[in-house]
Amino acid sequence: MRIKVGIIGGAGYTAGELLRILINHPQVEIGFVHSKSNAGKFIYEVHDDLFGDTDLKFSATYYSDIDVVFLCVAHGEANKIVAEFESSVKIIDLSQDHRIAADHSFVYGLPELNKEAIQNADYVANPGCFATVIQLAILPLAEAGLLNGEVYASCTTGSTGAGQSLAETSHFSWRQNNLSVYKAFTHQHLAEINQSLMQVQKNDLGNLHILPQRGSFTRGILACITLKSDYSLEQLIALFEEKYKDEPFVFLSPKNCHLKQVVNTNKCLLYIEKNEEDVMIVSVIDNLLKGASGQAVQNMNLMFGLPEATGLKLKPSAF
Amino acid sequence: MRIKVGIIGGAGYTAGELLRILINHPQVEIGFVHSKSNAGKFIYEVHDDLFGDTDLKFSATYYSDIDVVFLCVAHGEANKIVAEFESSVKIIDLSQDHRIAADHSFVYGLPELNKEAIQNADYVANPGCFATVIQLAILPLAEAGLLNGEVYASCTTGSTGAGQSLAETSHFSWRQNNLSVYKAFTHQHLAEINQSLMQVQKNDLGNLHILPQRGSFTRGILACITLKSDYSLEQLIALFEEKYKDEPFVFLSPKNCHLKQVVNTNKCLLYIEKNEEDVMIVSVIDNLLKGASGQAVQNMNLMFGLPEATGLKLKPSAF
Amino acid sequence: MRIKVGIIGGAGYTAGELLRILINHPQVEIGFVHSKSNAGKFIYEVHDDLFGDTDLKFSATYYSDIDVVFLCVAHGEANKIVAEFESSVKIIDLSQDHRIAADHSFVYGLPELNKEAIQNADYVANPGCFATVIQLAILPLAEAGLLNGEVYASCTTGSTGAGQSLAETSHFSWRQNNLSVYKAFTHQHLAEINQSLMQVQKNDLGNLHILPQRGSFTRGILACITLKSDYSLEQLIALFEEKYKDEPFVFLSPKNCHLKQVVNTNKCLLYIEKNEEDVMIVSVIDNLLKGASGQAVQNMNLMFGLPEATGLKLKPSAF
Amino acid sequence: MRIKVGIIGGAGYTAGELLRILINHPQVEIGFVHSKSNAGKFIYEVHDDLFGDTDLKFSATYYSDIDVVFLCVAHGEANKIVAEFESSVKIIDLSQDHRIAADHSFVYGLPELNKEAIQNADYVANPGCFATVIQLAILPLAEAGLLNGEVYASCTTGSTGAGQSLAETSHFSWRQNNLSVYKAFTHQHLAEINQSLMQVQKNDLGNLHILPQRGSFTRGILACITLKSDYSLEQLIALFEEKYKDEPFVFLSPKNCHLKQVVNTNKCLLYIEKNEEDVMIVSVIDNLLKGASGQAVQNMNLMFGLPEATGLKLKPSAF
Repeated sequence: MRIKVGIIGGAGYTAGELLRILINHPQVEIGFVHSKSNAGKFIYEVHDDLFGDTDLKFSATYYSDIDVVFLCVAHGEANKIVAEFESSVKIIDLSQDHRIAADHSFVYGLPELNKEAIQNADYVANPGCFATVIQLAILPLAEAGLLNGEVYASCTTGSTGAGQSLAETSHFSWRQNNLSVYKAFTHQHLAEINQSLMQVQKNDLGNLHILPQRGSFTRGILACITLKSDYSLEQLIALFEEKYKDEPFVFLSPKNCHLKQVVNTNKCLLYIEKNEEDVMIVSVIDNLLKGASGQAVQNMNLMFGLPEATGLKLKPSAF
Repeated sequence: MRIKVGIIGGAGYTAGELLRILINHPQVEIGFVHSKSNAGKFIYEVHDDLFGDTDLKFSATYYSDIDVVFLCVAHGEANKIVAEFESSVKIIDLSQDHRIAADHSFVYGLPELNKEAIQNADYVANPGCFATVIQLAILPLAEAGLLNGEVYASCTTGSTGAGQSLAETSHFSWRQNNLSVYKAFTHQHLAEINQSLMQVQKNDLGNLHILPQRGSFTRGILACITLKSDYSLEQLIALFEEKYKDEPFVFLSPKNCHLKQVVNTNKCLLYIEKNEEDVMIVSVIDNLLKGASGQAVQNMNLMFGLPEATGLKLKPSAF
Repeated sequence: MRIKVGIIGGAGYTAGELLRILINHPQVEIGFVHSKSNAGKFIYEVHDDLFGDTDLKFSATYYSDIDVVFLCVAHGEANKIVAEFESSVKIIDLSQDHRIAADHSFVYGLPELNKEAIQNADYVANPGCFATVIQLAILPLAEAGLLNGEVYASCTTGSTGAGQSLAETSHFSWRQNNLSVYKAFTHQHLAEINQSLMQVQKNDLGNLHILPQRGSFTRGILACITLKSDYSLEQLIALFEEKYKDEPFVFLSPKNCHLKQVVNTNKCLLYIEKNEEDVMIVSVIDNLLKGASGQAVQNMNLMFGLPEATGLKLKPSAF
Repeated sequence: MRIKVGIIGGAGYTAGELLRILINHPQVEIGFVHSKSNAGKFIYEVHDDLFGDTDLKFSATYYSDIDVVFLCVAHGEANKIVAEFESSVKIIDLSQDHRIAADHSFVYGLPELNKEAIQNADYVANPGCFATVIQLAILPLAEAGLLNGEVYASCTTGSTGAGQSLAETSHFSWRQNNLSVYKAFTHQHLAEINQSLMQVQKNDLGNLHILPQRGSFTRGILACITLKSDYSLEQLIALFEEKYKDEPFVFLSPKNCHLKQVVNTNKCLLYIEKNEEDVMIVSVIDNLLKGASGQAVQNMNLMFGLPEATGLKLKPSAF
């Protein structure tokens, strides 16, 4: 099978990461990479790590003679573009425009939650990075009806999570060797997480608090989640093992994990500890991969009936 | 006044930082800097940033012809050394050997808690870095009797907090761009914090959980603390303002703060937010200064009747 | 074709990187990964980014029922191991033991210099990382007989270049935000570079000086090379274009390049500038890939008649 | 003595650093800190590490009732401001507007070159950071008439050298773990260096090449300088020792030095090695201190007859 893809919003971080994956994907052919502001330039003039890897150029227009289009545009712009494509074109939207179920037909694209629906979907809304790292850590508990108290998720994100726009907090002189908290209790991904929790746990959902921090690293999110449970550690581990036993990208680590175990991969590592009734779950992903473009390709694979990990066996950077 | 000081364990990080402060302290004369393994070497051969600043050498012996000795030795060794000094020598112990009240006469040296006792003390036990950053954030609440539920302190520390010994997690190839959790719920500073809480709040103390993380930066600790309270934000701010209004090193910030605001200073910045009944307090210090050697000098100033900030008006590194 | 490989010295950085490549190489089967000190452990207990990717274990022994063995042992140990393998086993030695031609039958494994010889070789000595980044920048000049004056190569290397052993200069507290020069004029890779220069340029070779620096990054080497030439910039560019036009991993960049364009790839980017008679060449590689394990796999591909880039189309980490 | 100072261009990096020094300078009173865009704001709203240290505000106007004014404005703006001050006000210009001798009366403010002239000056042009780190490394050679061949200065600078404006190369996602060369052979500080060399060495000046690099650190410049000489190492060391024996901030290190030995200090460390006829000199400074604001205060001290190091005994950050 040959899948012809289009990318809209081709100059941003998520589009660049998508291109890094797709140019090596064995069953993908890139139809167009649209970018208004860069039309006519070589892809590698913007994503300069791709110099030597591709001679594609950004296009000024996009068209429907493709199998699937990835929307890498800003929040609020994706929903305007959908109507421009014929219904034969599948859509994967990396923005947050279609994550909350509403009067649209997008499936929420977290494969570990909605695999079958994704396989049958034409339109998929790719989850947020904080939403992914947190959901993978608590969905097994929610499915077992255990998520009924206070849940604190302290999450530290790399600078690429904020995109490529320049801001004081993304200035090297500011961020290097630094750490800071932002959007405490109010992170925009709460809504999509709560929507998923409601989907799997009909009773009381607990009360999730997200405490996001800006880390002095470039890629990845580490979530350190605490909650109370009367399940034993063994019972909790059994829940997670069962939940993820057939998933190609989610693994329960027998020892504490660190961020760089997953950087430059599509994996999520989880680790559980228990101290009296207190549970701690550590969850790590690469925000640009499992938290964005890698998951988008995983969704594409599912939508087209390919093995889920096709093109996603990425060499970790490790260091 | 001229204070003659001795330092034991002169080759470690806290001794180095003490020397960086004391060689510019207007009322200090350095009597000896003891280091078994480095005796005879110049100080700058170990603390090489002091090249050009001092021609002192490490000594093989120590003696009592001093006014105060700083113990910068490993935990477990400080309590063996105390008896070797005549009672005329004041002692400031940077190890954790005398932090918990027991059959010894050390005052717990957190100036914002025990200022008067420190001023009258001959022996002071310098608090731990995590203990300092957390206590300064919650003592005002404890004093008001508000600390009666679950308190979560997610704390991320720089690499200097682990000392200069080499370990996998302090290897640059490992730690750069990385993040990891360790000693969840079991950090050794819990005991001294709980001791202080008991000192100021006789009723239920709440239940403090520390979630330490290893950050990819060198200096500083950021604590992000969450708890519930029915006090309004204004009431909480008033508590903190009142508590710290005369303290030279602790400040309540009107906007969210970041780590590098305090790096290379003896300051602690605090910031409070409230979202419904949830309170978040951010607290930042430099672990080697307010979390160790700076606080030790602050204690020395108090013990000798000097203005508390003498020699501690340090230029922030800022970047 | 199915190539069965063995790895000796499996716990080090270069072996880890080799494993990251080989577990996804479409024509490789891993026979054994030998490590005396880790025998019996899972590979992922040492190279923990491979958790979830492989269930291989380190072996205590090695054997000859393989097609090729990679020697990832310390310098001085590789030459003792060679004799233990039957002549049917090809050998790729990543140590420096066989780089200098002597009474052995190893081909110096720089594909851009010795491709044909490598294709016909049973034994290949993989070049050093500094040697690779510098040779790719100056071989086109040497082949044209232009390297006859002073050549200065200021090279800054990431921490992984020093291996995983712990040392003061690899401590995070020391190296973060730092920079330093070492082994000025005396770097051990000079010998292999000069050997290659003699191979291609029979007349005066010029006088190469290497000024190595320790950078505060983990992966990569940037070489900034200066020399004098009366060739015009256009002539120089033509030389480089011609030399590398069919090479899959070496590219002349039309604009100045930076290290992260090649990190986590097997590529080398080159950039040339001219100012009056002064020439500057910038050359960047990932020291663990084109500078070590990636090049080793490139050599393996050549030795077994595979397309040179098989298994080496790696996603750049970019950030 | 009480020196009343004004600062114009108060929101930039060099003004911030000046404030960090001056608020603790024992003989300085700050008259105004001018910033058009921040007038009325507290200083700490822009330089937020000064929260708790000063309640000064930015002013909308400036006036002549001061002893000295520091010009921290952009290049090209300083020379417009000079005329606005009465001749009773001394001026220290941190921009490059008055570094090259012309129809103005500014003394080039490198104390190790022009100390007496600075002591008698009313107007001082503060040197550039690259100019400082290079001149301190080669002036002793120039004064001895030894600088007559090719001199290569490979200089790597921290991100603060580029100021606080946002640019792709100062974005954390780009710069972290990265390295790149820029302005090869054409750095704008060449002119002021050559002017100084002409001042001390009347004969052939040699041919200085600057190869600047952007390092992944925030503060500091390391220059690695190579040249040829028939002086012995001992003779070279003697030259440097003699030149700097009475200088409070320049030191010849007996062993190789690294950047963090001088970060957050006003010091310059130098180190010399010789290999046959090749000489390497390593020179390190903090670009914001000895390379900018620290040197400006050193010049102020000299202009007002204070001990040169007043207010400049800064605690190194070391880590």
